[in-house]
Amino acid sequence: MPAPTPAAAIDPTRFVLMHTSHAGNVGAAARAIKVMGFGDLVLVRPRFADVLTREETQAYASGATEVLARARVVDTLAQALDGVTHACATAMTPRDFGAPAQAPREALPPISAVGHRVAFVFGGERHGMANEDVWRCHSVLSIPTAPDYGSLNLAQAVQLIAYEWRQALGGFDVVPATPPPHWADAQAVQGTLAHWREALVAVRYLDPAAPKKLLPRLNQLANRLQLTREEVHILRGIARAMQASVAAAGGESGSRDGTDCGSGIN
Amino acid sequence: MPAPTPAAAIDPTRFVLMHTSHAGNVGAAARAIKVMGFGDLVLVRPRFADVLTREETQAYASGATEVLARARVVDTLAQALDGVTHACATAMTPRDFGAPAQAPREALPPISAVGHRVAFVFGGERHGMANEDVWRCHSVLSIPTAPDYGSLNLAQAVQLIAYEWRQALGGFDVVPATPPPHWADAQAVQGTLAHWREALVAVRYLDPAAPKKLLPRLNQLANRLQLTREEVHILRGIARAMQASVAAAGGESGSRDGTDCGSGIN
Repeated sequence: MPAPTPAAAIDPTRFVLMHTSHAGNVGAAARAIKVMGFGDLVLVRPRFADVLTREETQAYASGATEVLARARVVDTLAQALDGVTHACATAMTPRDFGAPAQAPREALPPISAVGHRVAFVFGGERHGMANEDVWRCHSVLSIPTAPDYGSLNLAQAVQLIAYEWRQALGGFDVVPATPPPHWADAQAVQGTLAHWREALVAVRYLDPAAPKKLLPRLNQLANRLQLTREEVHILRGIARAMQASVAAAGGESGSRDGTDCGSGIN
Repeated sequence: MPAPTPAAAIDPTRFVLMHTSHAGNVGAAARAIKVMGFGDLVLVRPRFADVLTREETQAYASGATEVLARARVVDTLAQALDGVTHACATAMTPRDFGAPAQAPREALPPISAVGHRVAFVFGGERHGMANEDVWRCHSVLSIPTAPDYGSLNLAQAVQLIAYEWRQALGGFDVVPATPPPHWADAQAVQGTLAHWREALVAVRYLDPAAPKKLLPRLNQLANRLQLTREEVHILRGIARAMQASVAAAGGESGSRDGTDCGSGIN
């Protein structure tokens, strides 16, 4: 058995593609594993022996070309599993015995907890994994798909397994795209509601003699909004503008059609 | 606002692709959502107006062509969101304010719990989502990726979000590929161990006068094996064959080189 390469020694996860037909899938798989922080790719007897250097492969790999540069092509699954202590098959074909198929979300956390050097093995696009190869593996993963259409593209399957394995290993952080919001405190929200109450009376939407449930409803709405300080400024500005417009019009709103402008809300 | 189509009425989830450049990604996205049991796809101003009927799109859709047949092409995100009550952006570009980016696994279960008609909105391959479109959405999802390489292919992102959303909705069952195993009970395992003890004495691997910890170690191994009844039959058959070989050779094993064949295990 050849000694693990230094790169493999620091990457405890290997992705093995068996008998891959489409160069694009090899490139897309390289990208899929890199985006989840993995980099050890082994191909077992791909359809094209030169698949790693084909133009289509490189194009689908996008920026993951160094995963292709490190990848190996071997003849057998046994060779692909050198150094691996736990191999997960991804297989759906019926077998008369063997490890039961498990969903990745349930199966992977226990495997990640016990310090294995893990390989995920994927069958070819046409026939999936041969039973002889499934039996070499320690566990069998099946991605739960729609009962009437389970036809998952190979690179998509690699992406989902790489994602679930990364999650089982603890996951990556989400990168914040916005600065942290400055939330308005309860006092600021109540002040805004009081200000709006005055403005709604001024514009004759709220009748102070029959307020019904308008204020508690607005209070609920304000709570659900989880307002920021900037938004409190906007809402107070709108209230001020309502009050100023009424004042400029002579102290009352222009209810020109004479209808009752009460809220109608109970 | 147009009334929802009958098909949309029974499918509470919509996938919206903005300004898609590559026909293959549209087809692969159709396949990705169908495999997770969804079927409502809307394209906002794709690069090719005829993308739904292009040969490349159909090829990448594999068996998901009826998703393409049902899909709509519209001019604006507002049109794409008709009937939608909660829109999730998928965006990583920095914004000066807005909903904080959340990981799908954390963000989606609460959304699924409150009965929304949900849309997932994906930006184009080149520039992602415009901030104006992100601000139309209720929440922002970010798939956690490797810090040094977050370049997720569009169809892969659609696949991961469709998968996480299906999981949040309760998930599909894993289809069993093997019949349920017939586990061996504790008595059958202990009987097998006792049989092996006799056979190991017969082949002079175990010295009954100095058994050390061999039996408890084999007991631990047998427990970890979680043997089936068929495997118990195999192990008992091997033990019988060992005993029979020794008996045929005249009642003792042929330790021809005279070395101590004790287990050496403590």
